[in-house]
Amino acid sequence: MSELVLASGSASRARMLTAAGVPFHVSAADLDESSLIADLWDKGSDAAEIARTLAEQKALTVSRRSPGALVLGGDSVLAFGSEIISKCSDLTQLKRMLQKLSGKTHELISAASLVRDGAPLWQDTGIARLTMRVLSDSFLDAYLAAEGEALLSSVGGYHYEGRGAQLFSHVDGDAFTILGLPLLPVLAALRTQGILGT
Amino acid sequence: MSELVLASGSASRARMLTAAGVPFHVSAADLDESSLIADLWDKGSDAAEIARTLAEQKALTVSRRSPGALVLGGDSVLAFGSEIISKCSDLTQLKRMLQKLSGKTHELISAASLVRDGAPLWQDTGIARLTMRVLSDSFLDAYLAAEGEALLSSVGGYHYEGRGAQLFSHVDGDAFTILGLPLLPVLAALRTQGILGT
Repeated sequence: MSELVLASGSASRARMLTAAGVPFHVSAADLDESSLIADLWDKGSDAAEIARTLAEQKALTVSRRSPGALVLGGDSVLAFGSEIISKCSDLTQLKRMLQKLSGKTHELISAASLVRDGAPLWQDTGIARLTMRVLSDSFLDAYLAAEGEALLSSVGGYHYEGRGAQLFSHVDGDAFTILGLPLLPVLAALRTQGILGT
Repeated sequence: MSELVLASGSASRARMLTAAGVPFHVSAADLDESSLIADLWDKGSDAAEIARTLAEQKALTVSRRSPGALVLGGDSVLAFGSEIISKCSDLTQLKRMLQKLSGKTHELISAASLVRDGAPLWQDTGIARLTMRVLSDSFLDAYLAAEGEALLSSVGGYHYEGRGAQLFSHVDGDAFTILGLPLLPVLAALRTQGILGT
């Protein structure tokens, strides 16, 4: 079987693939994501195009230094109305972001891309729509105290598989997409590429 | 805050509630589930009614010995065409069941019920539709070897959050429901009952 390289430093993506029994190793791409996102946004790309482009750019970057390997790139973008919401740099900023999302619906778009020797082979994009309930200030303070800095690694400021579930009144879409990868399509592509048995 | 008792021995339900930050302790109901299911089935109940009845029966049973406590019962039923599929008692039986589900769609119905002092307060039912890809014999053997007896605790013979994801081509529905509880409605009910903050 061929070798799979995950071109993403996301602990959540690595956890999902490990749990699903996928053999891989991590070689994170070191992209300047914020400036890439800003460029694409200025050019009129929508959230799904941005997620797809970043997933593919990560895979292409790592493919250059991993000849022969199958490289999986992944990226998640949070779209709120006409805005793209980026990761927060501290908990004060994160609390303000959650106050903004409170009581409203946002979309989480996760894209995956497979590349070998610089050639894109496959891609897929999953979209989930998440509606937050109205969060009280005391709830938010207790939530931030319980979760702490670990939230900063997460676009949207929640771990849906954990205490983050308390934030939502309604969710449409795939939980794997929310965690950062459209996993079932990724597994199907890995079967096609010989990484997994059929 | 009031005390929550989980009237289910399911490790998956306990894991979900713990991860979501719900305070509770476990006091599993000791019901003869197979004979209850057979009775309800003979009386013409459908899969959702069976799941709801079992979830409530578990909560009522534990409520009798837990005066004053809020008791959460949960149950999952797998419906395949006009059949109810029960847990398997060994891996040979489980392999035959997976061969039957292979390439086809089944439903997983998870019901939750809240009871206090013998009085039902709330219930909800989630339904997920899962389509398995066609599984080769060699895949099934490798899957059973990797997962082993742990699969026997799981109706359907898979842990969707783990290697079980490799079984599916398409899934409609909530991942929490697949894991055994319609979690977002449960969390909303626990807020109403004062177990969780709002």
